[in-house]
Amino acid sequence: MAENLQYYIDKLNKLNFKDMYEGNFFLTWEKTDDELAAVFTLADALRYLRSNNISTKIFDSGLGVSLFRDNSTRTRFSFASACNLLGLEVQDLDEGKSQIAHGETVRETANMISFMADVIGIRDDMYIGKGNAYMHTVVDAVTEGYREGVLEQKPTLVNLQCDIDHPTQCMADMAHIIHTFGGVEQLKGKKIAMSWAYSPSYGKPLSVPQGVIGLMTRFGMDVVLAHPEGYEVMPEVEDVDLKQAKKSGGSFSKTNSMAEAFKDADIVYPKSWAPFAAMEKRTKLYGDGDTEGIAKLEKELLAQNAEHKDWCCTEELMKTTKDGKALYLHCLPADINGVSCKDGEVEASVFDRYRVPLYKEASFKPYIIAAMIFLAKEKDPQAVLKALEEKAVKRHFE
Amino acid sequence: MAENLQYYIDKLNKLNFKDMYEGNFFLTWEKTDDELAAVFTLADALRYLRSNNISTKIFDSGLGVSLFRDNSTRTRFSFASACNLLGLEVQDLDEGKSQIAHGETVRETANMISFMADVIGIRDDMYIGKGNAYMHTVVDAVTEGYREGVLEQKPTLVNLQCDIDHPTQCMADMAHIIHTFGGVEQLKGKKIAMSWAYSPSYGKPLSVPQGVIGLMTRFGMDVVLAHPEGYEVMPEVEDVDLKQAKKSGGSFSKTNSMAEAFKDADIVYPKSWAPFAAMEKRTKLYGDGDTEGIAKLEKELLAQNAEHKDWCCTEELMKTTKDGKALYLHCLPADINGVSCKDGEVEASVFDRYRVPLYKEASFKPYIIAAMIFLAKEKDPQAVLKALEEKAVKRHFE
Amino acid sequence: MAENLQYYIDKLNKLNFKDMYEGNFFLTWEKTDDELAAVFTLADALRYLRSNNISTKIFDSGLGVSLFRDNSTRTRFSFASACNLLGLEVQDLDEGKSQIAHGETVRETANMISFMADVIGIRDDMYIGKGNAYMHTVVDAVTEGYREGVLEQKPTLVNLQCDIDHPTQCMADMAHIIHTFGGVEQLKGKKIAMSWAYSPSYGKPLSVPQGVIGLMTRFGMDVVLAHPEGYEVMPEVEDVDLKQAKKSGGSFSKTNSMAEAFKDADIVYPKSWAPFAAMEKRTKLYGDGDTEGIAKLEKELLAQNAEHKDWCCTEELMKTTKDGKALYLHCLPADINGVSCKDGEVEASVFDRYRVPLYKEASFKPYIIAAMIFLAKEKDPQAVLKALEEKAVKRHFE
Repeated sequence: MAENLQYYIDKLNKLNFKDMYEGNFFLTWEKTDDELAAVFTLADALRYLRSNNISTKIFDSGLGVSLFRDNSTRTRFSFASACNLLGLEVQDLDEGKSQIAHGETVRETANMISFMADVIGIRDDMYIGKGNAYMHTVVDAVTEGYREGVLEQKPTLVNLQCDIDHPTQCMADMAHIIHTFGGVEQLKGKKIAMSWAYSPSYGKPLSVPQGVIGLMTRFGMDVVLAHPEGYEVMPEVEDVDLKQAKKSGGSFSKTNSMAEAFKDADIVYPKSWAPFAAMEKRTKLYGDGDTEGIAKLEKELLAQNAEHKDWCCTEELMKTTKDGKALYLHCLPADINGVSCKDGEVEASVFDRYRVPLYKEASFKPYIIAAMIFLAKEKDPQAVLKALEEKAVKRHFE
Repeated sequence: MAENLQYYIDKLNKLNFKDMYEGNFFLTWEKTDDELAAVFTLADALRYLRSNNISTKIFDSGLGVSLFRDNSTRTRFSFASACNLLGLEVQDLDEGKSQIAHGETVRETANMISFMADVIGIRDDMYIGKGNAYMHTVVDAVTEGYREGVLEQKPTLVNLQCDIDHPTQCMADMAHIIHTFGGVEQLKGKKIAMSWAYSPSYGKPLSVPQGVIGLMTRFGMDVVLAHPEGYEVMPEVEDVDLKQAKKSGGSFSKTNSMAEAFKDADIVYPKSWAPFAAMEKRTKLYGDGDTEGIAKLEKELLAQNAEHKDWCCTEELMKTTKDGKALYLHCLPADINGVSCKDGEVEASVFDRYRVPLYKEASFKPYIIAAMIFLAKEKDPQAVLKALEEKAVKRHFE
Repeated sequence: MAENLQYYIDKLNKLNFKDMYEGNFFLTWEKTDDELAAVFTLADALRYLRSNNISTKIFDSGLGVSLFRDNSTRTRFSFASACNLLGLEVQDLDEGKSQIAHGETVRETANMISFMADVIGIRDDMYIGKGNAYMHTVVDAVTEGYREGVLEQKPTLVNLQCDIDHPTQCMADMAHIIHTFGGVEQLKGKKIAMSWAYSPSYGKPLSVPQGVIGLMTRFGMDVVLAHPEGYEVMPEVEDVDLKQAKKSGGSFSKTNSMAEAFKDADIVYPKSWAPFAAMEKRTKLYGDGDTEGIAKLEKELLAQNAEHKDWCCTEELMKTTKDGKALYLHCLPADINGVSCKDGEVEASVFDRYRVPLYKEASFKPYIIAAMIFLAKEKDPQAVLKALEEKAVKRHFE
């Protein structure tokens, strides 16, 4: 952590992020390098203020609406924490796991829940081609509502995980990397392995690996995506990655060997996910209400998974990484051998060695979310940060 | 919106609403004209302040307890928004859809949840003869609790929909009418049609039509209630309407023809509801736990409904209204032909033309609820409004 | 209530409770007499400030996380009220009634929900040997998280009911006794009967009777525990009670006769609970997933209970208490004859005579919880109280 707030303000002063004001956060690759840097910097500034017991409330009242299509303790608490940090009260809208009706209903509901909403956080990652599209429908609806005088303010959207990207997770992962390696400028030439790993459950979202390679290819690193044959991610994301890697002076490559990916890696991110093609199929089956087909697909996928139990982050594999000490990442919860399952993504001794760093990785998320909201809500974030420091309202009065 | 806050304060100064202080809000027809006017004016004043980024928090801490007997996204968010606007944190009490035990249990629970409660919002519309009575039991219990020193403050009750009235909805509808027609004094002689309309679902609450005619008959309008034979509302409410219409210089009439009701109407409110007699029967069946009887009744009601599919707000009918441009109202969500159902309450093109105005109609509700709370909590609301403006705490610090 | 805040500050000045700072609250018998006195005094001071419309918010933002293993309206609202009183927003973590996984998962979840948490309130009373242990695991995890820089603050734990003790309930009961008898110094030599009573349900937690005798034996009272044979509580708690009673100059005795316990009692607390041995057995059956065994045990326990329907707090029994006017206590809700059940813990006329006092008894709980948090969070509580009075921010702006 820096010694004073001015350090962060100086950093922000060098960045161009004016288009974030009154904007939304859908995908990291829709943002410029400067915009992402602004999020990282502001997240650190907010943490600096909080750890110095200075209130960061920029709202005296107002709601943060969360809309989760799936059970979620961690994301829900991260979002609630971010809102609380800025002075917003959370109201959860629980729509269940069903595929929501589109068009009229979404537009209407979006407005009905937004009369006092300054931010809407949505997690909708289960159906390919649906989650991100749904978020856009919501944003279009509230933007119209604001323009037409239905809403007194336009809520900003924060993507808390969609079918394509998981920006708050990956930005938190990246903040952890930056802090671990001592600055974003230290990352050029580093090797990061985003690798599939075996899990006894199936159908884990693709948005984590896609988000990771979609973000990590922007910092001059050598990004390797490893998975067994058949576990491909969305091709559109890979196209983005290739362009970004080239532009940043790094590389993006693929392999079907976990060993190859781990070899000399500085950072490893072994995690299970479902094949893109299977997820597309599942989305269609759900759309058709074909429960028999869904059950059959699940069985096939579990059988397919079981062929790759050797894709595990073992001590042996870790030894092959850079100095045997690659930074191990995970979005949590991980499937740990002999702890949460018999065979899983990682050996218990590896996980345990990185337990505290993993918790730190997660601890960045509330600040990342808060930073995204802050940048969408404040025309001059530097001035507001300065004013917060000068007002010096104590977060905890003691 | 007025140019300054003084406009609203001047309006309030001409009204007598002193009995609202420390009171509750059950039914609109239990309030005087001045008291209703105070709610409308204060709602506008709060919206004025918020749209000028001035905090309207009159509570530094305190709870708003919501008690819903039914799933409710819209009402829940409206209540949460109103509480947040005034500085109260919402705590939801979910008692399920069951008919709650009365007497001892209600009195006890009412006090146990109210130690820090400044407001209790209740929605209990499912059972005839129960909802409103339940609210009175709660109010009596907390009033006694306050008097006896159990509670440090007496929570005010806001009726968020009972078996008889839906005051926050109808007051929001009325606020929308007032704003659309340019003032309450413009309403004399206007014709409003509260009409039954077909819906593929059954058992929609009577409190909306009853609330609408119970409120709209107070402004000198010609109020027409239209429904097929057998879809009568509570006779007690009709008695109130006749008296109110006479007193206000308007009229209240009934017809079994939707066409007759729509003819030359300035405002139309086509909406499905269940017959009062059937709802009474259902309440008894639920009381007896007669699930077979309930299923049979449902079947009968759906069959009865299906005979009246022609009760739809069509383009053709809309053309017969005043200049073909009557203001279309609905409490939302509506059953829209070809959108949310095959045959429903309204044709899609009609609904779509009024979509933004319908959202605006809904947007008044949080302010109406907040105004009801404000008037129950502040002895001198004008002075508090003035003080809020002078303090000028920014809602959003920017 | 005292005439001024200084009264409470003077009382606090005479007590040594410095070890409560940055501590947790698990069991009352782990606290010194001075520490318990500090909780009672601070609870009163907070109530004094609130009733004088002075804000007691010591947090500008921050979360209070509640973790309930069981449905709970009352405890949930008490905790929410306490958090709100101090400026914390509540976030509920619902883990269902299942026995939660231990070790890794608990440590991880504890940290993931605590990034902005200043307090964690846990209720986990269903399984013998589990609830209190679980709370310790959570505290150990967040303490490590704080030390390692994962968390910016260490959340304090408040035990909202475990398998051993129910400190917030019993402290509220005791606050009620103190206020009723005019001070803790009036309690020496008073007789209190903690008695089993019949209830048509089974398996009510042992933590209430254990908590009551575990606390009440510290004030020089004659504490009598009465229950039918076979309804023993945890022997470890009885050991504690004997020592405490001796030290305080009172006594602790047991009887299998309700009449003997009530004879000349100043205070009676008749309440159902399950036999300790049966609860141990049930815990094992749940652990084994033996649903058949659980059903069989339930049947046995209900039959066993039914043999003791005569264990009821009747008017006749009440007449045998001191001047026929013993203070009747209950943690609520009670099983009332002819009201909530046919045969229960207490006759309706007895309950009704004590209804208002029972509500008052309950009303202390939010303040007791708030006091526990306050003492864990403030190094110099007296100075903070004084500062709050001087700042004199109005809780309700009027």
